[in-house]
Amino acid sequence: MLSEQIISELKSIVGKHNVTTEKADRICYSYDATQKSFLPDVVVHPGTAPEICDILKLANRERIPVFPRGAGSGFSGGSLPTRGGIVLCTERLDRILEIDEDNLIATVEPGVVTEQFQKEVEKRGLFYPPDPASLKFSTLGGNVAECAGGPRCVKYGVTKDFILGLEVVTPTGDIITTGGPTMKGVVGYDLTKLLCGSEGTLGIITRIVIKLLPLPEAKQTMLVLFDSIDGAAQAVSAIIRGKIIPTTLEFMDGRTIDCVRQATGLEVPEEARAVLIIEVDGDREFLDKQVARIAEIIRPLGVVETRVATTSEESEALWQIRRSVSASLRKVNPDKFNEDICVPRSKVPEMIRKVDAIAERHGVAIVNFGHAGDGNIHVNIMIDKKIPGELEKAEKAIEDVFKGALELGGTMSGEHGVGIAKAAYIPLEITPLAAEYMKSIKRALDPNNILNPGKIFLDEANPAGRGE
Amino acid sequence: MLSEQIISELKSIVGKHNVTTEKADRICYSYDATQKSFLPDVVVHPGTAPEICDILKLANRERIPVFPRGAGSGFSGGSLPTRGGIVLCTERLDRILEIDEDNLIATVEPGVVTEQFQKEVEKRGLFYPPDPASLKFSTLGGNVAECAGGPRCVKYGVTKDFILGLEVVTPTGDIITTGGPTMKGVVGYDLTKLLCGSEGTLGIITRIVIKLLPLPEAKQTMLVLFDSIDGAAQAVSAIIRGKIIPTTLEFMDGRTIDCVRQATGLEVPEEARAVLIIEVDGDREFLDKQVARIAEIIRPLGVVETRVATTSEESEALWQIRRSVSASLRKVNPDKFNEDICVPRSKVPEMIRKVDAIAERHGVAIVNFGHAGDGNIHVNIMIDKKIPGELEKAEKAIEDVFKGALELGGTMSGEHGVGIAKAAYIPLEITPLAAEYMKSIKRALDPNNILNPGKIFLDEANPAGRGE
Repeated sequence: MLSEQIISELKSIVGKHNVTTEKADRICYSYDATQKSFLPDVVVHPGTAPEICDILKLANRERIPVFPRGAGSGFSGGSLPTRGGIVLCTERLDRILEIDEDNLIATVEPGVVTEQFQKEVEKRGLFYPPDPASLKFSTLGGNVAECAGGPRCVKYGVTKDFILGLEVVTPTGDIITTGGPTMKGVVGYDLTKLLCGSEGTLGIITRIVIKLLPLPEAKQTMLVLFDSIDGAAQAVSAIIRGKIIPTTLEFMDGRTIDCVRQATGLEVPEEARAVLIIEVDGDREFLDKQVARIAEIIRPLGVVETRVATTSEESEALWQIRRSVSASLRKVNPDKFNEDICVPRSKVPEMIRKVDAIAERHGVAIVNFGHAGDGNIHVNIMIDKKIPGELEKAEKAIEDVFKGALELGGTMSGEHGVGIAKAAYIPLEITPLAAEYMKSIKRALDPNNILNPGKIFLDEANPAGRGE
Repeated sequence: MLSEQIISELKSIVGKHNVTTEKADRICYSYDATQKSFLPDVVVHPGTAPEICDILKLANRERIPVFPRGAGSGFSGGSLPTRGGIVLCTERLDRILEIDEDNLIATVEPGVVTEQFQKEVEKRGLFYPPDPASLKFSTLGGNVAECAGGPRCVKYGVTKDFILGLEVVTPTGDIITTGGPTMKGVVGYDLTKLLCGSEGTLGIITRIVIKLLPLPEAKQTMLVLFDSIDGAAQAVSAIIRGKIIPTTLEFMDGRTIDCVRQATGLEVPEEARAVLIIEVDGDREFLDKQVARIAEIIRPLGVVETRVATTSEESEALWQIRRSVSASLRKVNPDKFNEDICVPRSKVPEMIRKVDAIAERHGVAIVNFGHAGDGNIHVNIMIDKKIPGELEKAEKAIEDVFKGALELGGTMSGEHGVGIAKAAYIPLEITPLAAEYMKSIKRALDPNNILNPGKIFLDEANPAGRGE
C-alpha cells in the first residue's frame, strides 16, 4: 500500500476528488476485457498534461508503477495494474479540441470515446475509419496506445495510419510533442508511430492529431454464403485480384454459423459452411457496378446464396448477424479465449485447417471469424472453465494456434496487442536480438521501469505475466 | 586514414574486389544531391547481411564511423561520409526476391532501383505508389531510410505507408527482422516505422517487405492555369472538400512559370500566375466524371485555362512542364537551395506570401512549386554563389522560411529529411526534451555512435553539421 504522504501528494496534484483509494472504486479499475483483475493501490484522474507530469515525477522518485488506462476495453490486459501502484485514468481528458474541415484534421484529448468522435466528424461530412468492436466505449487514447483495428481497416488501414501527431508525457514526466498537423514530416525519428501500439509503455498520450477523410457518399453491403471456407477464402483473394478493395471483408466459419444459428435462430441453408460480409463504399452510382462485379468474380467459388442490402435497414440486418457472434458464442460455451492472429491473406484457408486440427488434437471447440480481407482471424477457443482440465487444454491450443500462425509468416496479434495475455509467448515471434533492441528503447526512455511495467515483455517483477 | 590491417579485414569480410581505397573511386562516393562532398577513407560493397554485421562489429571494435549509402540521391546529405570512415554501399543487394500476387506483397533487397521495382510490379497489374523525383536512380533502401515522398503521396501516402517489414543490421552488428508479410501486426514496438525515415542512424536495411496495391485501370491528367496563387490554393482545398482526393495535386507559382517560360519557351497566357497539375486515377469510366466535377468545383476560382489530356502522350506533355522545372530554374540561376517545407494544406497561400516577403527582405529570388495537395512546398532559393554575399543571403532566407513554416504549424521537411542540411535548425522544430527522447533511443541502440554519426542531430565531433 502507498503511504498517506504519497496519497496526499497525489491529491495536491490532481485535487482530492480525483484520487480514490476506496476499495469499491479500485475494483472498478482493476479489470479489462480479459476479465483478469488486479487491484491498484490508488486511482487518479488527472485533468491536464502538467498534472500527469507531476504524477510521473512523483512515481519515479518513489518507484511506484503507473498504469495508464482509457476505458479498459482492451483484450490483452494492457491497462491492468498487475503490481498495484497507480492507475492513471485519462477519462477526464475528453475534449474534441478542433475539427479542421479545411485540412481534414482533428485534434482531440485521449479520453474521447471513439464512436462519439466518429459521429462528430461525420456530421461535418468527414470520416474516421478505424472501428474496433469496442468503439461505443473505447477511447481514442486507448485505440492509439494499442493501435486498434476493425472491419474497415482492409480498405483504410489501422489507427496508426490516421495519427499525425501526439502530445505525450514521457515516462520521466516531461511533455513532448511528436509529428503535427501536416500530411508529411520527416524531421527526427517518427515517435508518433513508435508510440502508437506501444501499449502505454513509452509515454502517456495527452493529445492526438488525427487525419480524416471525406465521408464516402454511400455504402452497399452484401452477405454471401459459401459451401466451404476455401471458397470464401478464395473469394477474398479473387476480389482483391479483381482490383476491388472493399471497405470490409468479414468472414465467419461454419462453426460460427452453427453457433449463431443455435443462439439466434438465424435462418441459413444447411450447406452454408462459411459467410463473407462484403461492404463497398464510395460514390453512389459506382457501387451497384462494384457489387455486380464482385458477384461475378465470386460466382464460381461455391456460392450458396447472396443477399444484397438495398436499404440501410437491410444493411443493418446483415451486420446484426456479424455482431451477434460474440454473444452467440458465449451462449453456447461460457468461457472463450479470443485470440487475433493475422496471416498473409492467401494463407487463411491453410490457417483454418490448422486450427481445425488443433481443436481436434486438444479436444476443444474452436470457432473462427474476423477480418478475412487482411488475414486477421479471431480464433475463439471455447471452453467451460468449471470443467476440470478445460483451461489447460485451452492454453495448449492457444500456443499451437500462435505457432501455426507464425509458421505461415503470420503474427500472434493483428490488433489486440500483447499486454500480459501474450507476453509469455513473445519469444515465439520475436528473436532475442530483436527483443533486446526493443527493450533497449524501453530502458532508455523509462530508466526506472515506472510506466506500465511488465507489459509486452515480462520482467523480473512479473515473470509469469500474471501479476503478483 | 584507416590502417592496412583494417582494410585487410574489410577485404576478408566482403572480398577484395568489393573494397576500394582508390581516391578516384572514393570521390564517386563522396557526394549526394546536396553537391557537398566529403571523402571517405574506404568504400565497401557488401553482398549479404552477415557481411554487414561483420563490418559493423569491426567498426564498433575500432570506433570507425560507418555511412550507409543507397544511390546517393538524397537532398539533405543523409549519406555523406562527413567524418571519413567507411562508406557502406548497398547497391549489390539489388534483388527483387518475391512479388506475391495473391497477397499484394513484395520482398526486395535495399539496392533495387525504385523505378525498376515499379515497372516489375506494374507488369503484374500491381502498383507501388511512392514516386520521389529521383526514382530513376534512387534505391528502395534509400527511400525507406529517408521516407521518400512524391506527387502521388497526396492520395496514397509516403514510403512508410507501404513498408510492412524489414530485415535490419543493428548498429552493433546483429540481424533483426521487424514486422512481416501481414497487413496488421501489433506484437512489440513498431520498429519498422521507427526505422523508416531514421536516415540510416538506427540500422542498415537489408531486406524490405512492401505492400502493393492493384494498379488503377486508368488515369487522367489536367493542367489548370489560375490567375493567382490564392485561386490555385483554394482550388486544392475545394477539390478535397468536394470529396475527391486526386492522385496528384502539383502546383507551380508565377515565378516558376516565368522560369519555365524563359528556359523552354513554354506557351502560357501572361495572366497565368499559378498552375495546378491534377491527376485522377481509377476505373476508366469513372474518370471523365471526376474530371468534370473537378472542373466545376474550381471554375469560380480564377481559372485562366484548363488543358485536359485525352491520351497518354498528351498527359506526358503536361507532366513534361512540371519535370522541366528543376532544369529551368538552374538555367536562370546557377545555384539553388531546394527546401521542402510542409504546412497544413489550407496554409499554402499564407506560406507563399511569407516566402514572397522573405525573398524581398533578403533580396533573393525564390520560386515555389511542389505537392500542394499535402501542403509540401519546394521552396527554391536561387542565387549565384560566385557573387559575393549571395550565399549568406540565401542562408538567412532559408532560416526565415523554416521559421515561417513552423509558425503555421508546419515542418522544415516533408520528404527530404534532415541529414546534415537541416541538423543545425533542429532546435527550431524539436524541443530539447523531444530531442533528448530521440537521442536516448539513438544512444541506447548505437552506444559507440558508429552508424551515420552527426546526422539529424549535430554531435560533438561535427558541431556545425558540415563535417571535418
